[in-house]
Amino acid sequence: MNTKVPSDIQIAQHAKMKDICDIAKECGILEDELELYGKYKAKISLNILDRLKDKKDGKLVLVTAITPTPAGEGKSTTTVGLGQALNKIGKKAIIALREPSLGPVFGVKGGAAGGGYAQVVPMEDINLHFTGDMHAITAANNLVSAAMDNSIHQGNPLNIDTRQIVWKRVLDMNDRALREVVVGLGGKANGFVRQDGFTITVASEVMAVLCLSDNLMDLKNRLGKIIVAYNMDGQPVTVKDLKVDGAMLLLLKDAIKPNLVQTLENTPALIHGGPFANIAHGCNSIIATKLGLKLADYLVTEAGFGADLGAEKFLDIKCRYGDLKPSAVVIVATIRALKMHGGTAKGELSKENLDTLNKGFENLAKQIENIRKFGVPVMVGINRFAMDTEAEIQFLLRKCKEYGVEAALNEVWEKGGEGGIEMAEKLISLIEHEKSCYKPIYETEASISDKIGTIVKEIYGGSGVKFSAKAIKEMKRLEELGMDKLPICMAKTQYSLSDNPQLLGAPKGFEITVNEIRVSAGAGFIVCLTGDIMTMPGLPKVPAAELIDIDENGMVTGLF
Amino acid sequence: MNTKVPSDIQIAQHAKMKDICDIAKECGILEDELELYGKYKAKISLNILDRLKDKKDGKLVLVTAITPTPAGEGKSTTTVGLGQALNKIGKKAIIALREPSLGPVFGVKGGAAGGGYAQVVPMEDINLHFTGDMHAITAANNLVSAAMDNSIHQGNPLNIDTRQIVWKRVLDMNDRALREVVVGLGGKANGFVRQDGFTITVASEVMAVLCLSDNLMDLKNRLGKIIVAYNMDGQPVTVKDLKVDGAMLLLLKDAIKPNLVQTLENTPALIHGGPFANIAHGCNSIIATKLGLKLADYLVTEAGFGADLGAEKFLDIKCRYGDLKPSAVVIVATIRALKMHGGTAKGELSKENLDTLNKGFENLAKQIENIRKFGVPVMVGINRFAMDTEAEIQFLLRKCKEYGVEAALNEVWEKGGEGGIEMAEKLISLIEHEKSCYKPIYETEASISDKIGTIVKEIYGGSGVKFSAKAIKEMKRLEELGMDKLPICMAKTQYSLSDNPQLLGAPKGFEITVNEIRVSAGAGFIVCLTGDIMTMPGLPKVPAAELIDIDENGMVTGLF
Repeated sequence: MNTKVPSDIQIAQHAKMKDICDIAKECGILEDELELYGKYKAKISLNILDRLKDKKDGKLVLVTAITPTPAGEGKSTTTVGLGQALNKIGKKAIIALREPSLGPVFGVKGGAAGGGYAQVVPMEDINLHFTGDMHAITAANNLVSAAMDNSIHQGNPLNIDTRQIVWKRVLDMNDRALREVVVGLGGKANGFVRQDGFTITVASEVMAVLCLSDNLMDLKNRLGKIIVAYNMDGQPVTVKDLKVDGAMLLLLKDAIKPNLVQTLENTPALIHGGPFANIAHGCNSIIATKLGLKLADYLVTEAGFGADLGAEKFLDIKCRYGDLKPSAVVIVATIRALKMHGGTAKGELSKENLDTLNKGFENLAKQIENIRKFGVPVMVGINRFAMDTEAEIQFLLRKCKEYGVEAALNEVWEKGGEGGIEMAEKLISLIEHEKSCYKPIYETEASISDKIGTIVKEIYGGSGVKFSAKAIKEMKRLEELGMDKLPICMAKTQYSLSDNPQLLGAPKGFEITVNEIRVSAGAGFIVCLTGDIMTMPGLPKVPAAELIDIDENGMVTGLF
Repeated sequence: MNTKVPSDIQIAQHAKMKDICDIAKECGILEDELELYGKYKAKISLNILDRLKDKKDGKLVLVTAITPTPAGEGKSTTTVGLGQALNKIGKKAIIALREPSLGPVFGVKGGAAGGGYAQVVPMEDINLHFTGDMHAITAANNLVSAAMDNSIHQGNPLNIDTRQIVWKRVLDMNDRALREVVVGLGGKANGFVRQDGFTITVASEVMAVLCLSDNLMDLKNRLGKIIVAYNMDGQPVTVKDLKVDGAMLLLLKDAIKPNLVQTLENTPALIHGGPFANIAHGCNSIIATKLGLKLADYLVTEAGFGADLGAEKFLDIKCRYGDLKPSAVVIVATIRALKMHGGTAKGELSKENLDTLNKGFENLAKQIENIRKFGVPVMVGINRFAMDTEAEIQFLLRKCKEYGVEAALNEVWEKGGEGGIEMAEKLISLIEHEKSCYKPIYETEASISDKIGTIVKEIYGGSGVKFSAKAIKEMKRLEELGMDKLPICMAKTQYSLSDNPQLLGAPKGFEITVNEIRVSAGAGFIVCLTGDIMTMPGLPKVPAAELIDIDENGMVTGLF
């Protein structure tokens, strides 16, 4: 990164934000459809979707990435910058991002609102309570737990098997001590003792449900279908059985409305919903995406992790449920990460190395091939770092040309929209000249194991799948319950195309081991867990929280 | 109650609300000082206190009550109605109430926003997420827990004695299963196993701290002083030792700003902070109260439970810390409750009974006497119910006259401000003719046991105090730590002047048993627990949550 560029928070604090009412007006949102949260944030009433239902949709563009390094390759930054660049060249573009989780702010990680000169603002608010969506989801999730434990305490009329409770409580906090807990201690007045656990709020199925819902009644219906436990006869017990779907809906009635903010260059940004990218599908809400398509000519959005996980779930889950037809995909690549995939050690990444870059290209090539399997036009956005040499950049551009894929330098972090103009122009040309023939990679009617097999072979490049005894048992149960005809949500390491984070590049011939199968019946997908998936982060030795402060003028320091 | 009057939610949904910008403008709040949360809610920037610092304060009026029945005597309703009535007779009045807790909404209890034609609106929002203050407090509280368990896990540099952790996690949910839990299970990666518990958010010391803070830096300072545990040498470990006071302040930077809404008759209402009335002091924030005094000629506020608890803590804790000088106190009484104090059984309350009314008057008399001990002018507001007979009303008015206290009929529930005009006029006359010589009932310099003794003898009418061995030990520790010179926060049943809820009327000669003493070093008071104080409610057999629903037009039903 270029050290001339100030820190993210410094840039954000100096942003020239427009009044959010003006941003809304410019994208055609009526005053009556806007609910202000201060001067620079607003929620948008769902009535707007009805008003605009006959308007033609804009083009849907997904930003995804190669298999990333732990630092990330800059998907959010590129999404923001690409939106800014499109506006700069006279196109009407809106971006749609996920809402960041509050917990990690106090851990090791900075914010999740882009970076450099490609950020969404007001950055502090977005990374803290924002418009309260996360808190509403926390409350809705925990109401289910309270209602379930209460039902058991009050005579257990639903005959819930307390050994088969699959619902956990949540908090939006990095708190390892809550991963495994025992609740109900202290005697009869406090209910029955049982083991429980907390996940972080974004890992709640309520978040996935909110993001896959089309409207208020669809949300209610999906909430009702969430399975919280099994009864003594092995039958599912749902939220609807607990009769709290209406109360959950009440708690979520504002959270379901998309949030409008802006980028540093006043490009409208819809930031709404942020499900985990492993045990959930890792995309912002369908409602926000659909709204953006009605309001803009180009709606640029992103999905969590590399393309094998993020784009696959975007295309197989979100687009399927939302009836969305993506026009193009931009794969973000960095020279640094490609060299790592080619064998350069972590400490050597700042040195020029065309050999490892050449070798590491195979990861990018595989991700490109994958997107093409979905029938969607694809291009590469090379996120430029200060350490990249001219020779490396020219080499990578040539490799892309040889491979038959359009590529553009992406300097939005350092230069904002200006640094993304070439990428924006090439994207428009791609969309104009190459027709999207989007189709999912598997049919939901296939068996669970076939669907997983298709993803592993077609997308990951693996040779097959090994299922644990537990997974086989659960697949059988879901077949018996008639719940096997749902899309698959893969939970896998993001650091390799395989399930082994050490296998870089584009490995082949590996088997994927499936430890566990779970159904998210409300969200409408079957989660397939490979390896250990952490759903409640912990704090590091020196948490970021220790560095945060505010002075008497309200000036925030130590945040990101 | 009069059955002609529609339900609270029906009345609230038909309210003719003014745009909150207009409400703000009318009370002299500048546009720049307002932060909108939709059309009918706003936060007010703390800068306003600086701008108005030289303006003369209005009159401070506290609404309190006799010892209540479980249904409550209508303090909030009277506060709202009195504010409306004062405006109706041409006075500039603002009301200040506590923020309701979300958890109980799903339990048995309705909302906490007044009732009938004396409510604050938008009632649904106020009772749900409102402006997110409760959620911010939940997050700030739980950040402390996560940081503390993390510190222990990462080598325990503060030498925390895990047997002496006094800080609990919180959720804004009625959830009995969380009262006593074990956390940190699951092996080394999840930290050390220890016993913990959750209280409801409003019972968090963070809430008490927020409500007793004067400004942002005072808040930070108080947060830092919160004691979370004791170390192996018996010394306190504070939030400042954990270095998360700055991060907590960041989480609370908006929660500290007062919230502006309106009543059904467009009287401005500041609703800010809502600490428990037993283990905390049960009053809205000092900041909101001070702001109201700058903006209005009359600021009407309330405090939780009956006058022996609510008014005592308002006068001994809140007024002391806030340097507030109350001009008058209105005691709400109902004929129903007075008859109960006089010996009428619950099922007989709808029948006229002058004998038990006469006998029950002793409770009201004692509460009046108590307020006078603080040197503050006092009057009675008789909250009229449909079942009250004319003879009973006339009898009670005569008793008040004989006792030498002004009394007025209070029909605000049925008639709104119109029903409180007599009460408002008598209040103004009281303030004009009787000077307030407010002083607390004890000096903080006295010993803990002396301060408690003073409250028990002077306010409750008891003969003395019995301390448990545990309480004596803790008093000694606090003396040694030099933390004994703080005001006392009594945690006692609200249903009797004594600590036995069965002792109605104005009992005498009883002893109070103190089971436990705790210090809330951030809030700045010593909590004195008598009897079992519940800090995490449970859900009933049929929770209110089961009745709540929303239709496809967003219409809420089943709420209150």
